[in-house]
Order: sequence, then structure tokens, then C-alpha cells
Amino acid sequence: MRTEIATLGEFGLIHRLTEGVHPQNASTRYGVGDDAAVLSYPAGKEVLVTTDLLLEGVHFDLTYVPLKHLGYKSAVVNFSDIYAMNGTPKQITVSLGISKRFSIEDMDALYAGIRLACETYGVDIVGGDTTSSYTGLTISITCIGEGEPGKVVYRKGAKETDLICVSGDLGAAYMGLQLLEREKAALQGADKEIQPDFGGKEYLLERQLKPEARKDIIEKLAQAGIQPTAMMDISDGLSSELMHICRQSNVGCRVYEEHIPIDYQTAVMAEEFNMNVTTCALNGGEDYELLFTVPIGDHERIAAMEGVKLIGHITKPELGYALITRDGQEFELKAQGWNPLQEKAE
Amino acid sequence: MRTEIATLGEFGLIHRLTEGVHPQNASTRYGVGDDAAVLSYPAGKEVLVTTDLLLEGVHFDLTYVPLKHLGYKSAVVNFSDIYAMNGTPKQITVSLGISKRFSIEDMDALYAGIRLACETYGVDIVGGDTTSSYTGLTISITCIGEGEPGKVVYRKGAKETDLICVSGDLGAAYMGLQLLEREKAALQGADKEIQPDFGGKEYLLERQLKPEARKDIIEKLAQAGIQPTAMMDISDGLSSELMHICRQSNVGCRVYEEHIPIDYQTAVMAEEFNMNVTTCALNGGEDYELLFTVPIGDHERIAAMEGVKLIGHITKPELGYALITRDGQEFELKAQGWNPLQEKAE
Repeated sequence: MRTEIATLGEFGLIHRLTEGVHPQNASTRYGVGDDAAVLSYPAGKEVLVTTDLLLEGVHFDLTYVPLKHLGYKSAVVNFSDIYAMNGTPKQITVSLGISKRFSIEDMDALYAGIRLACETYGVDIVGGDTTSSYTGLTISITCIGEGEPGKVVYRKGAKETDLICVSGDLGAAYMGLQLLEREKAALQGADKEIQPDFGGKEYLLERQLKPEARKDIIEKLAQAGIQPTAMMDISDGLSSELMHICRQSNVGCRVYEEHIPIDYQTAVMAEEFNMNVTTCALNGGEDYELLFTVPIGDHERIAAMEGVKLIGHITKPELGYALITRDGQEFELKAQGWNPLQEKAE
Repeated sequence: MRTEIATLGEFGLIHRLTEGVHPQNASTRYGVGDDAAVLSYPAGKEVLVTTDLLLEGVHFDLTYVPLKHLGYKSAVVNFSDIYAMNGTPKQITVSLGISKRFSIEDMDALYAGIRLACETYGVDIVGGDTTSSYTGLTISITCIGEGEPGKVVYRKGAKETDLICVSGDLGAAYMGLQLLEREKAALQGADKEIQPDFGGKEYLLERQLKPEARKDIIEKLAQAGIQPTAMMDISDGLSSELMHICRQSNVGCRVYEEHIPIDYQTAVMAEEFNMNVTTCALNGGEDYELLFTVPIGDHERIAAMEGVKLIGHITKPELGYALITRDGQEFELKAQGWNPLQEKAE
């Protein structure tokens, strides 16, 4: 079934997509349907704001990304930025630029993913903008969240001797992308009837197609009474993010290759692709794990925390950004993370 | 001078564009440079959020819109939405999708316009996202503003016998667009050396290329102690916006053609184009004037207010949306406002 978007028009489409959206958060006073949404944050709370612009062909490839997954991921990557400030996402606005190629049913699927993410994380859709586009799909999401005064965590607070921690594991989302790209290339050249075989690689695909934001880690840290000194989410790659923290905190770091958390499937896949798995973990990006630093006094409590790995420590700035390999050699960390402007604009 | 954006990369470009941006508002705690901006609104204030997505070819044509003007307008149209809630814009995030066609100097010009608008209206740039695009320029701006509890004005509050008011004059931005389109067509077919003659039409061009948000009207209303019952800004056209207010308030309206404010240049230009000037004023859009309703008891104070015109009144819903022409005939108002999805997607 394919219904042209023109049959509904802008207001009809917005009405259809946002029908049944009922704000769940007390801070949402008025959502979709006026010139602006109206929020009412409790006295003394900090308001966090983050935004992401996703363009077809640059950030996603619809030949292998289902629209519902894309919607889910588009929302979750914004939630991840709010958690990375030690906050809680509460509202999003969703702006869409839609070309004629897309039907109402396509937008239903995209929005179903956005709404699922919002339900899962307790976030309200409060507004947006919908327009036509000459060229593919544009998704711009802004997320507003809540932080406790004095508890918001910036990138700039890492101190010498602090421990460097990472949640989950790294490199899987990147390997998932490689896998999807390989199958796409294979299918384009061959019999279209052949279904790609992703058996045993489900984790990699899930990490690429349906990432989650680490709400659970933020909650665990709060329960354990641990206040990170610096934090960000890993969207561009561990190296790149760690260097952001070090530069903004004016410190150096020492990271141990053997402690970087890597899933078994990631390692197997890297082997199959003849890639260095550590390089994938350092520069892969899109894992949406949390990278954070804690005072050395929190060592025991952090070491006991499930789902968090200690990968190194913060040093004096003059010691630079060091990676210690498994065989004890020392290299300078380089940010080869995904740079959308350099990569595509060259 | 043309410098490729790739020479700077994403973070370099963001650094260049936001250098010297210093937050002016007390509610801006932390701006550009982390996973999210941190705002701190005083206890008891309402937080207003609005967003606009602008795509090259759909919303703007760079053959006649200078980038600095485009930046200014992109910001101002968001401020206008916050004023239309009877609020004050305080922060914006700016996301840009940039194709290879654009140089660093182009982005400097665009950002100069955004920054000028922010300085003029007292708004801080607190974040955004910058990425490459395969196809032209994408601008997504989200604006956050402040409202007084109980003073925020929605579209839904118009009551029978309320007076319908409009600020400034209507139709000029639309005539400015017609003028630019005509000159573009003329220049494409003819000698490129000929400079278009816009003499005597400066007002129309300014209304199209450099619209202002009606901060002054919001201030005047507050000073006069007038609290509008419903309000919105006129971006799509008077008819379309008035019908939004009527539908959301469940009322009808009577609007008098002779009272619709039209500038002399608009009327002259409509004559030249052989267009009905009232139709232009009703459906033109992009004037960014305020449309609002006030209780009939405010009649004298509103009538005495400079820059505001009374154009009709609110009626029972069963009387519908009526336009009374100069010769006393009654027509049903129709929304032929600019609908980006219907117009472009058909």
C-alpha cells in the first residue's frame, strides 16, 4: 500500500503522525499544535538541549536500514547526548524533509520507530516541522532534558589520576555497518533472490541498526553515588571522544589496549574482514556507549560495576594521549573518527 | 576568496563559526562545545520550544537570496514563533547540512546573518550540528524562549465577540518574492550584464529578504496591559492562520477586506502583476506579522495602538469564516496559504 503524501498535505500528515501522542512528563505543558511547545521545568532544574541533523546518503542508507529502525535510532542518538550530560531526556521535536519518493506509509514506519524510542525512554514528542524535500529524507531532532544542579557532567572536568571508564563494548556498530555494506555490494552484483546470511552476526546488526542509549549506566552511577568528573557518549569513536575530553580538560591520558571492551562477534568479524579489531574499537563510532572519568577513590565501586570497564587513566597534559598495546609498546592516540565534513566533502 | 570546508573539518568549522560567541542571557549556563547545552531558567518560568527546517530549493533560492540575509531570516522566523506565544526568545541551536558547492566564506556569511539576528534580538547560539550534504544547503534551527506563567498565549483561546487584530501590513513579502522571481527569469533569458531595477520597491524586497519578528508589538501589548486571547505569527498567510485560530478555538470569524492593512508599494506591485492585492494579503505568507485576538473591552486601547489594525471579530462557530468585501458581499475564507507538501509533492 502506497499513499502519496500530497493527498494529506503538511497539516494532515502532522496530524496523522502525532495522533494519539499524549505527553507523559509533568514538564510537558503543551506539545504539538501551536507556534511553540510549552514546557515547565521544576524550580532549580537545569535544562539540557541537544540536536542532530541526519541526511540520507550521508548518515543513513535506506537500501539496508528499515525506516522504523531509522526512526528509533534518530531519537536514541539524541537521548544518548542528554545521558552523556548525566541528565534525563524529556522532550523532542522532530523535523522531517520528505521527497516524493516517500509515501504516507513510509512516514508511518519512521514515526513508529521514533514513538517506540520515546515510549521506551519516557520522552514526549512536543513539536517539529514537516516539509517537502527535492532530495531524499532529512531528519532533524532536538532533544530537551533535565539535569540536577551540580550533577551535570561536562567534558571539561577530567583531572590527573582520574580513571577512564567505558560502558558496554566498542566496535560492534562499525562492524555491523561493514557487514551491511558488504551484503549490499554482493546483492547489487548478483541474483536478487539470494537473502543475505547474517546468522551469528545478529549482535553486530543490532548495534548498528538499533542502538540503545545507556540510561541504565547513568542510573547505576547515581545509585552507587559516583559522580563522573567528565563524560560524553561515543558517537564518533573512542579515540576522537577521549581526545575531546582531554583537550577540554587540559589533561593527557593512558589507555590500555587489553582493557578496551570488545565483543566476541566483533573480533570474529574483524578477523573475517582482515581488520585490526582495536582500530575498529578506537575509531569505529556509533556505539553510543558512555566514556567517562571518575576520581581514583571510586576505583573499587567502579571495578565492581557490571557493564563498565576501566580502560586507563588521566595524566598530566604534557604526557599526551598514549595507547599502550598488548605487548607493552606505547603509541600516540590519533582521532580517525568519522568526520562527516572531511570524509564527504573532499 | 574560496576555501574548501574540507580543509577545516567539522570541528574546525564549528570552532570558526562560533568563535567569539559569548552568551548574553543569564539562562544560558553553557553553550557550544559539549554533548548538550545547559540552560537554567528561573523558577516559575515557562520554557518555549520551536523549530524550523529550511531546505534549499524548497524554502529559499540562492540565486537571489544572499547568504547573510538567509541566515538572518532563518533565525528571525524562529524568534517570531516564540513572540507569537507572547514569550521572549533566549537561545537557538543551529544545524547545517552543507554541500561541496559551499565554501568556508559562504558559511561565514550565513553565520554572520544568524549572529546579527541573535545580537539584534538578544538571543544566544548554544549549539547545533554541522555535517556535509550531497544536495545543497539544509538549515535546521531550534529556538528556546521564556514565557511568564499565565501569560503564554495559545491559538486556542479566541472567544466570541473578541476583536481580530493584525500588526504591520500584509502581502509585501509575497510581492517581494514575485519581484525577485520575475527578475530572475528575465536575467536568465537575457544579457547578464543588466542589473535588475528595484527602485521604489525596496520595501517589498526587504520584507521578503530581511523580515523582522514583532518583538515591539509584544512589548507594546504588555505595556498597555493587553493580554491577547489567541495569537500566532503569519508565516503561511492570513487566511490559513486565522482558520487555525478559529478551528483550535472552536469559533467563527468575520474579517473586513477594507481593514486588512496593505502597504502602498504592495498595492502598486499587485497592480503591475495584474494580481488581486487582497488575495496576496490573505494568502501571501512570510510577512511574520502577528495575528491575535483581544477581548472587546480592549477596543479603545487596541484602536489607539500604532502599528496594529483591527480587521474583524470572532463569531459563533456556526457562522463560519466570513470575508466581507469592500462592496459588502460575503465570502467564505479559504486557506490557500503556502503548503510546502501539497505544492511541491504533487
